[in-house]
Amino acid sequence: MTFSFTGLSAFPITPMHQAAPDEARFATLITRLVDAKVDSIGALGSTGSYAFLTRNEREKIARLAVQHAGTTPVLVSIGAINLRDTLLLAEDAQKAGVKALLLPPMSYFPLRDEEVFTLYETVNKHISIPLVVYDTPGTTQFHFSDALMQRICELPHVRSIKLPSGSPTAEEATARMQRLLPTLPKSISPGISGDPTAASALMQGARIWYSEWGGLFPHLARQLTDAALAGQKDEVARINAIFTPFWEMSARYGGSLRVIASAAEIMGLAGADALPSPLQKISQNDMEKLASLIKTHQPS
Amino acid sequence: MTFSFTGLSAFPITPMHQAAPDEARFATLITRLVDAKVDSIGALGSTGSYAFLTRNEREKIARLAVQHAGTTPVLVSIGAINLRDTLLLAEDAQKAGVKALLLPPMSYFPLRDEEVFTLYETVNKHISIPLVVYDTPGTTQFHFSDALMQRICELPHVRSIKLPSGSPTAEEATARMQRLLPTLPKSISPGISGDPTAASALMQGARIWYSEWGGLFPHLARQLTDAALAGQKDEVARINAIFTPFWEMSARYGGSLRVIASAAEIMGLAGADALPSPLQKISQNDMEKLASLIKTHQPS
Repeated sequence: MTFSFTGLSAFPITPMHQAAPDEARFATLITRLVDAKVDSIGALGSTGSYAFLTRNEREKIARLAVQHAGTTPVLVSIGAINLRDTLLLAEDAQKAGVKALLLPPMSYFPLRDEEVFTLYETVNKHISIPLVVYDTPGTTQFHFSDALMQRICELPHVRSIKLPSGSPTAEEATARMQRLLPTLPKSISPGISGDPTAASALMQGARIWYSEWGGLFPHLARQLTDAALAGQKDEVARINAIFTPFWEMSARYGGSLRVIASAAEIMGLAGADALPSPLQKISQNDMEKLASLIKTHQPS
Repeated sequence: MTFSFTGLSAFPITPMHQAAPDEARFATLITRLVDAKVDSIGALGSTGSYAFLTRNEREKIARLAVQHAGTTPVLVSIGAINLRDTLLLAEDAQKAGVKALLLPPMSYFPLRDEEVFTLYETVNKHISIPLVVYDTPGTTQFHFSDALMQRICELPHVRSIKLPSGSPTAEEATARMQRLLPTLPKSISPGISGDPTAASALMQGARIWYSEWGGLFPHLARQLTDAALAGQKDEVARINAIFTPFWEMSARYGGSLRVIASAAEIMGLAGADALPSPLQKISQNDMEKLASLIKTHQPS
């Protein structure tokens, strides 16, 4: 399969064990995604803890993902604070056989527009596979202007953008998407992250859902993606209602990773020390709530 | 010299050359600080690009700093996104002979209060030298509550805090300092960063200035520190006036590092590729302004 940048791109966690990636459990997560027929797999996304792992660990996880994904295309994040490291990660990932690269403007000091453009321009020059622009202001503190996004989207390897669907508010994100998408080259497949408003974005022009919870509940995310792309509003509402309590708990913890790792533990797919330190598990009370939600809905 | 956590702590840049630390020029910067009789040297601070360097590079730079600092105590940042890496960096730094460690709650996902407390608690348990709490919301996105800061300051190795003096505004930072300092244990030496309001903070209870521009203009920063701690308002105003255009240009670039590296280049203390990529130099126009300021005031 080539990377079409459409449908469901599922982002699994990288479960940790004793402060190192739990390779066996990671492989199981990848196999589950293939079985659920996701369109692509986003390994080592934010939810996949790329920012917490060493270059060697990222190379190993990229190889494992490709090996277990079979014909399902894999993309990985090559984000790093130092551009020098991003170029090395891009080389490693290409050698590992991934089909696309995901690049956030990761930074220590908030970056300036010209620095971000040069970052994408430099990476574009060094790679031979497609690149996805990863717009994630909650972790990078960088806000893309429409003009900068348009300029980056003209670079020949750039094929998709991953927009935050709920940032800073769902309304502002929707307005931005409606303003931005018609101005982008036809070669760009608009993508959405931010699970709670993803279905609505897919019904309004986004073509690919880069999904965090889809990495754990790929069947449910598959159904939501298909219903949204087919414009089946009632079915979308039905599935969104199942996802909603999971999304609400994610929001309460300021992000999905802590809650997804806890859900994976409950489902026997991750150990009790699955989160990269210093991130901590959700409260015992929320663990019980989460277990009860999983028992009721049996999401998979 | 032991680390008294008073006076001027000067934070030099780590000049880069061909994407690696320029060790010879870094050593020269350390020697200049010793000659200016700074009270301590903060190598590998934010201004020292710690977040851009590998573990090996950070170990090498820590050793070089200690070697060239003579009897002047050196502290280094051990910040990392993964706590596992922070512990390794703490070991490296202690073996290198530094006298104190600086720890920011660096993160990819904004951290929760309990996670930050556990971070400091864990590091405190693993080290045998003093620890400085580095409060730098502009780079970590983390805001310490008074209660959390008080709790962390009770940890036995914690000896100082480095507060942002101008964040979110100079007035709010001053109000916070006046509220917070009387509540901290006597063992804590309150410190200030954020150069433009540092002298005023030193006159209001801060005991140590962790200074970015002091890493390049140590004589001038030495004079400002001494004048502020002696309560000499006119002398403070005179020296602040010399620093002001440098601080204003730093603010315009959203941080000091880009401007300090450019000034170092003008002074022959860094090469033209001194900044870690993707950070970029200031504009040609600003380079000329900076050169003219340096020619006029001859800061050293």
